[in-house]
Amino acid sequence: MSGQGERLARAGLSRCAEPEDLAVEAALGVLGAERLWDIVRGSAASQEERHVVEAALLERGAREASAAAGLATLRERLRGRAAEADPVRDLENVARLGGGLLLPGEEGWPLPLNDLGPGAPVALWWRGARPPVAEPGGWLGVVGTRDPTAYGLHVTSVIAGGAAAAGAVIVSGGALGIDAAAHRAALESGPPAEAGRPLVTACVLAGGVDRLYPASNARLLQHLAREQLLLSEHPPGCAPTRWRFLSRNRLIAALGAGLVVVEGRWRSGSLSTAHRAAELGRWVGAVPGPVTSGTSEGPHRLIREGAAELVVRPEDALGAIGLLRGASPPRQEALPGLAEPSPIDGLSEPEARVFEALPRRGVTSLDRLVLAAGLAAGEALGALHSLLARGRAERRDGGWARTRH
Amino acid sequence: MSGQGERLARAGLSRCAEPEDLAVEAALGVLGAERLWDIVRGSAASQEERHVVEAALLERGAREASAAAGLATLRERLRGRAAEADPVRDLENVARLGGGLLLPGEEGWPLPLNDLGPGAPVALWWRGARPPVAEPGGWLGVVGTRDPTAYGLHVTSVIAGGAAAAGAVIVSGGALGIDAAAHRAALESGPPAEAGRPLVTACVLAGGVDRLYPASNARLLQHLAREQLLLSEHPPGCAPTRWRFLSRNRLIAALGAGLVVVEGRWRSGSLSTAHRAAELGRWVGAVPGPVTSGTSEGPHRLIREGAAELVVRPEDALGAIGLLRGASPPRQEALPGLAEPSPIDGLSEPEARVFEALPRRGVTSLDRLVLAAGLAAGEALGALHSLLARGRAERRDGGWARTRH
Repeated sequence: MSGQGERLARAGLSRCAEPEDLAVEAALGVLGAERLWDIVRGSAASQEERHVVEAALLERGAREASAAAGLATLRERLRGRAAEADPVRDLENVARLGGGLLLPGEEGWPLPLNDLGPGAPVALWWRGARPPVAEPGGWLGVVGTRDPTAYGLHVTSVIAGGAAAAGAVIVSGGALGIDAAAHRAALESGPPAEAGRPLVTACVLAGGVDRLYPASNARLLQHLAREQLLLSEHPPGCAPTRWRFLSRNRLIAALGAGLVVVEGRWRSGSLSTAHRAAELGRWVGAVPGPVTSGTSEGPHRLIREGAAELVVRPEDALGAIGLLRGASPPRQEALPGLAEPSPIDGLSEPEARVFEALPRRGVTSLDRLVLAAGLAAGEALGALHSLLARGRAERRDGGWARTRH
Repeated sequence: MSGQGERLARAGLSRCAEPEDLAVEAALGVLGAERLWDIVRGSAASQEERHVVEAALLERGAREASAAAGLATLRERLRGRAAEADPVRDLENVARLGGGLLLPGEEGWPLPLNDLGPGAPVALWWRGARPPVAEPGGWLGVVGTRDPTAYGLHVTSVIAGGAAAAGAVIVSGGALGIDAAAHRAALESGPPAEAGRPLVTACVLAGGVDRLYPASNARLLQHLAREQLLLSEHPPGCAPTRWRFLSRNRLIAALGAGLVVVEGRWRSGSLSTAHRAAELGRWVGAVPGPVTSGTSEGPHRLIREGAAELVVRPEDALGAIGLLRGASPPRQEALPGLAEPSPIDGLSEPEARVFEALPRRGVTSLDRLVLAAGLAAGEALGALHSLLARGRAERRDGGWARTRH
């Protein structure tokens, strides 16, 4: 458990600073949350503090002029919000909602978020049946368009449902369409809803965990808030802005050991999430669809560009994130009815030729067989012998024939 | 023009030897067609001839025993058919059908076939409006299942039709389904059917060019025989056996500068053609489809295994085989209606934040804007200034607002 000062400071900063603010990230890294929060609220920064922030900003590629102005600009930028911030009230609110605030390094903090480096959230607001778990190694992101086809919804339920049934925790946003379908499939296919049911799905919001947006998804989000997990880097009450949706995507990307994009248009939030995941070294998969479908343009683009692996079934994702139990069965065996076995599969070339030379109906003589096979007599006899042994050919009606089935 | 002896020898060998016969390939390479044909018809081979064939077989990886038996076995194997072969009659027959025989190195011999090395056909029987052309640099193979979905047929017509319209020659087999749809699309979309119409589609058969198999495709194949091009490595009268279908696939693979697989099951001839093409260094593409469709299993497998590039539109294939005229337009521009442009595209981070902070309806004050954007006042004003300059924000009703559309 971190100290109360740290807790209030991070709660306050999470209300005032937008995610991925270069100056906040740099100052937080060198000054710590408590000192930064003091400065934002009006405490004078020493010359040394200004210099270390400037150096940190330069190191992270900021231009010299803006690095020099670093701490002063940051302070001016955040002070309006800081004056209105009330972290004590925010913490009370989230507790009343049935949740809490988790700080980096605390027990339960999802370690994969640390892969975001300085871009990791200042803190994580949560709401649900249980706090986040510390090492969500088996989390799988499933994202896609808000406007899916029936095909997209079906595939989402197969992939997310199959993954949840195999023990993965699904992570997605709170949008209509693929996001909602992924949560629903996890709820339906995961371990039964009893006391002690493990977490099956987690929803990362772009606003506060009390902002159940969009309204038409409110019932599902309320259910997730009660029985599963809502996460946000913004305190209760914060509105989901477009900027926050884009930043939120990095959390989905980071939380999953892998990410599957089911449907998404050419340019879409799902694609940005996929690219974020790839940057973090996460495995990324994409489900293809008809090339005539605009909602499959995104997955096809990711696959074409080598940014995602083509995903056909849940096992493709589970295997990639190390959740596949036991050896994967040979793929053709896993698809009964889809294989087109050829009658000459597994035969040597002479065997195949002799088999082909055997008539489909009736019988043939040995001479005609050798001629039709185009083999030397000895070779043809050897091949015929082995076909007999394999039960593929037989002697019948005074001639030679394919075995009847 | 090759000599008449060479012509008769290759015509005869093409009737007696099955494609991809290791011993025939080796003996042909070291003895030449005329001498090999003499030996097959009974002329005694010298000890030296036996030795060079043995050496050639060993070099190509044959086991020692079968290499030593090489020429003798080969002769025994082919002599039955050789006794019945009548190359003069075969040449008369193909001329009567409106075609001819083309030997390697002759004018019109498709040079890409030479990439098959010793596996190149002994000779090429053709039938059509014109003999093959020498350098079919712009040929594109389009293959797929005999049992396609409506989606597969549609995409085939878009891809093959688009490629033919851009000047590609389509090459495929003569099967029902995707093969037939590819030829039909090329006929419909290629240059108009007038005198001097260039070749738009070529069909490679597994039997003789008079064996219009399957019967239900006979009308299309007859049309191709009259106005386009049928090709085979077997003389007229030869039956299409399964072995010959598999060997035939290497010719489709070699003739195209690239190959597109539209639909095919998990194991299918189309996949084998794709692998042949990849072995020859040809570009291979595959069209995805619903993961719920068995006929898209093959393309998905090729893409997953990295054996094929995902193909969405004809340009993907045309670009890969160097037939795309002019620079390829940026892909999002090429897809009007599919892009989901975001209102903050092209904006800097401060601009995006200020734009987001502007209300969707009504106006806001400068103070509220700066607070909502979470920026320093100077930064916010700079960003607002640039939004005004871009026409994205405006002063209205005593406040600040997004520009109305």
